[in-house]
Amino acid sequence: MSLFDRVVAASLPFVPKPIVGMVSRRYIAGETLADAVRAVKELNAEGAAATVDVLGEDTKERAQAERTVAEYRRVIEAIVENALQCNISIKLTALGLLIDESLCRDNVRAILAAARPHGMFVRIDMEDSSVTTRTLDVYRAVRKEYAAVGPVLQAYMRRSLADARSLLAEPPLNVRLCKGIYNEPAGVAFKDFEVVRRSYANLLGILLRAGACVGIATHDAPLLYEGLRLVDELRLAPEAYEFQMLLGVIPEMRRVLISEGHRLRVYVPFGQNWYGYSRRRLRENPKVAGFVLKNMFARR
Amino acid sequence: MSLFDRVVAASLPFVPKPIVGMVSRRYIAGETLADAVRAVKELNAEGAAATVDVLGEDTKERAQAERTVAEYRRVIEAIVENALQCNISIKLTALGLLIDESLCRDNVRAILAAARPHGMFVRIDMEDSSVTTRTLDVYRAVRKEYAAVGPVLQAYMRRSLADARSLLAEPPLNVRLCKGIYNEPAGVAFKDFEVVRRSYANLLGILLRAGACVGIATHDAPLLYEGLRLVDELRLAPEAYEFQMLLGVIPEMRRVLISEGHRLRVYVPFGQNWYGYSRRRLRENPKVAGFVLKNMFARR
Repeated sequence: MSLFDRVVAASLPFVPKPIVGMVSRRYIAGETLADAVRAVKELNAEGAAATVDVLGEDTKERAQAERTVAEYRRVIEAIVENALQCNISIKLTALGLLIDESLCRDNVRAILAAARPHGMFVRIDMEDSSVTTRTLDVYRAVRKEYAAVGPVLQAYMRRSLADARSLLAEPPLNVRLCKGIYNEPAGVAFKDFEVVRRSYANLLGILLRAGACVGIATHDAPLLYEGLRLVDELRLAPEAYEFQMLLGVIPEMRRVLISEGHRLRVYVPFGQNWYGYSRRRLRENPKVAGFVLKNMFARR
Repeated sequence: MSLFDRVVAASLPFVPKPIVGMVSRRYIAGETLADAVRAVKELNAEGAAATVDVLGEDTKERAQAERTVAEYRRVIEAIVENALQCNISIKLTALGLLIDESLCRDNVRAILAAARPHGMFVRIDMEDSSVTTRTLDVYRAVRKEYAAVGPVLQAYMRRSLADARSLLAEPPLNVRLCKGIYNEPAGVAFKDFEVVRRSYANLLGILLRAGACVGIATHDAPLLYEGLRLVDELRLAPEAYEFQMLLGVIPEMRRVLISEGHRLRVYVPFGQNWYGYSRRRLRENPKVAGFVLKNMFARR
């Protein structure tokens, strides 16, 4: 990290909301469902699948959680109507997990019931470490009633190896593997970049060898290579895995992977609650923040 | 890369030819066949084998390609006359590949016919990605008629894993594995240093395990170690592999490997067309360029 990047990273908590908003345009489809549908159509046209996320998290109000359920119903309808290569990703803290776990479970069930007639897969996103156990608990509860649902493992979490083993004990498993982006204490998450990378490679090998269908969610070149290497070594069929990337991040590389015959899915967030998501992206990649700041000064 | 290295690398397209010439003295035996014979004799005396390359590439003229064939005939005679531990390396774009593939094939056949009575091995160098497929095609064509010929795989090429699998399907295979030095787009070649290194280690394991005779062509310490580790793990006989290095690069390390009982071959280029070769070496290692520039300024 250059000195400039470090200064930008340290000043991130004080970056004004309008600047986060400028950054968000790169990572978010827009504020409306129509924006999301348009983005997914473009991705489908270039051969990529998508997963749509209704932005929002940490809801303390039942009514807000219910509005999120209703919004996901509209998303499912739009996906079916437009025959999109697309599924959905949900965040449990947007569906009432911080209010009451059983309320959250019921909201998830309502979304799964809407997705079921269309055979649509539903990904339960993983959030910060305060909700890891409860998120996996909700996944396990609904997984008994609905097959096309899957959790996420974060390679930076020290517990993920144990979680992977216990999730693999209840096959079939469809899991997304990412590095993890929340700011966690050292007792909970690996803090060293190279350790997180090795943890990711280790988990990926364990999951693929055990026959899990893995969403290889990373933009890190050595980990993308490790994914390709394992796919070759294990002679995996194209249905046994997919690469996953975020909207706005290295579109060149997603085209390369698609052209080489791999499935690739892009995470497409939309909605008005873009602040938390964009702020995490910004903290993850200070170069983007630096770029925005430089441009702002250049314009004055 | 330090700021100084980056400045040097960025200014490389503008490095004047005389400076490239100064650098070339380190990497090239000289302009004449006598220079090459002298360099090979010195290498043989220290226990290293050699492979001689007549400098030249990207020929657009039939007469030039024919002169290259004639020069290789003289090289073969000199190797035999002086009883050198030495074979030859050829570049297909110097033998007419850019003019006509069948012309090139005939020129390669002429060189193979001159090498055959002496049981001399001929390496077909790999060049940039625009000629990868045609180079392997020519190799496959002449390989049917002549056994002691082998291709090169470049670890930075995304296609090399697939190429390795298909070359291994037609044993026996004698292949040189290098990282690759040409400036290629990201869709064609891995750009991340660590990914190229991992690709190299992966390919080396696959090739050696499958029984190919591999020229382990690298100066990268972790990859040299990986080579030694695999040789030990697979209990390979000394004839099953050889280390390969370029003239002018880490002679200390080649003496270490020889003293440990490994075969080692040095790539010895000679001739008047030193510019393209030296420029690639210079771009690969801006520290060398920086060193030359510093020395020039120091002398003024």
